[in-house]
Amino acid sequence: MSERILIADDLATNRIVLKVKLTVACYEVIQTDRCDEVAALARDVQPDLIILGRGRTECSLSTCRALKADPTLGAIPIIMVSDQDDQRARLEAIMAGADDVFSKPLNEATLMAMVRNLIRARGADSEVMRRRELSRDFGCAEAPALFARHARVALIAPDAETGIYWRMHLATEIRHRIDIMTQSQALEDVGATGNVPDAFVIASTLNETSDGLRLVSELRSRQTTRHSVIVVQDCGETPSPSSMALDLGANAVLRPGFDARELSLRLTRLLARKFEGDDLRKNFDTNLALALRDPLTGLHNRRFAQSYLDRLEREAQLKDQPYAIMVLDLDRFKSINDRFGHPVGDDVLVEVSKRLKTNLRDMDLLARYGGEEFLIALPGVTRRQAQTMAERLRHAVGDRPIASGGVPKGIDVTLSIGVAVSSDAPRSASSAHELLQFADQALYRAKSDGRNQVTFVSDAA
Amino acid sequence: MSERILIADDLATNRIVLKVKLTVACYEVIQTDRCDEVAALARDVQPDLIILGRGRTECSLSTCRALKADPTLGAIPIIMVSDQDDQRARLEAIMAGADDVFSKPLNEATLMAMVRNLIRARGADSEVMRRRELSRDFGCAEAPALFARHARVALIAPDAETGIYWRMHLATEIRHRIDIMTQSQALEDVGATGNVPDAFVIASTLNETSDGLRLVSELRSRQTTRHSVIVVQDCGETPSPSSMALDLGANAVLRPGFDARELSLRLTRLLARKFEGDDLRKNFDTNLALALRDPLTGLHNRRFAQSYLDRLEREAQLKDQPYAIMVLDLDRFKSINDRFGHPVGDDVLVEVSKRLKTNLRDMDLLARYGGEEFLIALPGVTRRQAQTMAERLRHAVGDRPIASGGVPKGIDVTLSIGVAVSSDAPRSASSAHELLQFADQALYRAKSDGRNQVTFVSDAA
Repeated sequence: MSERILIADDLATNRIVLKVKLTVACYEVIQTDRCDEVAALARDVQPDLIILGRGRTECSLSTCRALKADPTLGAIPIIMVSDQDDQRARLEAIMAGADDVFSKPLNEATLMAMVRNLIRARGADSEVMRRRELSRDFGCAEAPALFARHARVALIAPDAETGIYWRMHLATEIRHRIDIMTQSQALEDVGATGNVPDAFVIASTLNETSDGLRLVSELRSRQTTRHSVIVVQDCGETPSPSSMALDLGANAVLRPGFDARELSLRLTRLLARKFEGDDLRKNFDTNLALALRDPLTGLHNRRFAQSYLDRLEREAQLKDQPYAIMVLDLDRFKSINDRFGHPVGDDVLVEVSKRLKTNLRDMDLLARYGGEEFLIALPGVTRRQAQTMAERLRHAVGDRPIASGGVPKGIDVTLSIGVAVSSDAPRSASSAHELLQFADQALYRAKSDGRNQVTFVSDAA
Repeated sequence: MSERILIADDLATNRIVLKVKLTVACYEVIQTDRCDEVAALARDVQPDLIILGRGRTECSLSTCRALKADPTLGAIPIIMVSDQDDQRARLEAIMAGADDVFSKPLNEATLMAMVRNLIRARGADSEVMRRRELSRDFGCAEAPALFARHARVALIAPDAETGIYWRMHLATEIRHRIDIMTQSQALEDVGATGNVPDAFVIASTLNETSDGLRLVSELRSRQTTRHSVIVVQDCGETPSPSSMALDLGANAVLRPGFDARELSLRLTRLLARKFEGDDLRKNFDTNLALALRDPLTGLHNRRFAQSYLDRLEREAQLKDQPYAIMVLDLDRFKSINDRFGHPVGDDVLVEVSKRLKTNLRDMDLLARYGGEEFLIALPGVTRRQAQTMAERLRHAVGDRPIASGGVPKGIDVTLSIGVAVSSDAPRSASSAHELLQFADQALYRAKSDGRNQVTFVSDAA
């Protein structure tokens, strides 16, 4: 599907010129001459980008503000077209929420690069949004931080004096830490552990061996700065480096003539988005890992155990090694809950988990498989070793009462354990899941034989 | 942390020249003159990139093959440095598994862009690998497809004859569908629904309004081609477009003079990686969604329900609307399992889920909360509406026996339902989780009052 661009301008000629250029690049273009219709139309056609012309009525600023304030439309990027190359008009547009501003006369290369840049960012944003939704569904999404976070901004100016001038003016606008550095210092900082700058402002012309665009490419290729904010300050070369800088991954290019106000507005907005993305990327992995754990005991859960068994089986076949599977069940656990209440039952489960854990190797799997049922998988273990291990676990749990705040004397708990070893199983039943069923049958026998004992599948057969 | 590059070459001068250039760009460089030590060293230092010089002993080809065959090292990208600009040497290197080949004399800009390209790809790869591990832990990872998948390759040549020449030669090497197209046709195809080319081979010089590099940028910005394979065929301009093409997102740049063999080798390898990434991206979302569902009934699970309740509470406060929470439990479910066996019990759970589902609105939450326990949340519902709804659900389950293959007459099941409505709750107990506890208490009362009935929290208090 083509990306869809909505053009709003009350001057037909403006719309037509834009539409032709965008259609040639195979975007799907929808247009309107009614400023007051933009929001409704956007809701309807869900564009990937909106281009707002200034038009005759000059209502574009209020339209832009309204779009950005709308919770369902606010994420759609907006380019505002300004009639003259007027810094005040640019600032107004950005303050109204525009993601970029385009001044006439139309330089096609720059406009198209601007469109590509925002379309690309929109693609990355929708990935971030999908992660946000998933994090939310996993119950671990934090609300986005509303306070401004402290950032580190690196200025890579064409020379030392310009750097000092930039910093002096920028410092009056933002409260972030601002460091002046050379291209090589910037890359060194990226390489240092910790404290990598969050944003880089890079002059398009640098007094060094290569220009600023090369630094943009370097930063975008490195792991630590892949998601950093990069703003390029056009130093007035002809032809303008704008389009190339954007295509190489800069988030924005500022026109010649340093404007601290515009730079600070842009940095603030881009940094907020960067921090949000950082948080989501970080939390996402944590959340997913949580989805494979039992919240009470911190052990792996049934879902993880099931996929683990598949891998165990494959690896055992590959290495031609035996392995053992144990199903462990706390005896008469229901009566503990009934006599002492659920909080005490929970204490017991947590303590049993700990005792089992300390008696296993790092490579063994210990999972909470059901309410009071645990699953253990032991790679590379023979029948004799499994027997020793199972007895050790039975004693670890049964020999000492379990302390619980609610029960001063502690609670006596015993374990029934069913064991199946791959080397014992008939050839036809060599899958880990079949072995698990055998262990289950053995557990059933351990229970019916009086509990608090270890039973092997072959004994149960 | 800086990205780490391992240089192996038995000629000290070669190593020194490379090391200087890479150190200036702030990579961490490790070097060795022993070809036979590379694998051990790589295992030790875990580089992000390996540069293999041809050296005197010419063992680099076998080293490259050995590295690529090693399961723990195979993913590290390798650049081979070839002494002369010799097409046969290039081919040998690529056939040995090199990700790119660099011919002397050293053009620094191209070499550095090659390094950036592979370092960037490595970053993207590690994300793919993390997803693969997670997918595996969620138990839904499929083994990577070993058979070659059929791909669509688009050739964007400088002119029609060249396109035909390219296709003719490429068709003898690969069995994919090969289409010749112009730049605009390529973009149109990207916009069309379905059947977007998997790979683009783009001439650096195009007989159109813009050069091939612009097309690289366009393709990389679009949603459908962000992950496509892009190979640029250098058409012999000076200066060479190689470094810019790589920085703009091309996966590889082929030297002037069309070589169908090299192109096909590169395409095959890049396409395999693209397909693997595509699969993982697609499966990942599916797997995660599965982690929030109960496998038996397909309903949302407890984890999802818990995060949903938080959102429900926040939204209800925002809109100042009441909501109701119900806990539903199948009466004497254990006896069904005992009498008819677990498969029949499962049939009952599935059918009850269906009957509940068809009696709820799309916006309501229905989750399997425990073994035979369901949770329902009804936004915007008053006490009276909740009462009606609960009775309807009780009848939907209890009025007709449930069919199961194992039990011809069907099974009679009844539901006990505990309900709590936010508007009934005291101000101090307005969280959804507290409301859930009230509903639980009400359920307890419904059970002790004889089952098969609806009880409200206020009745139970």
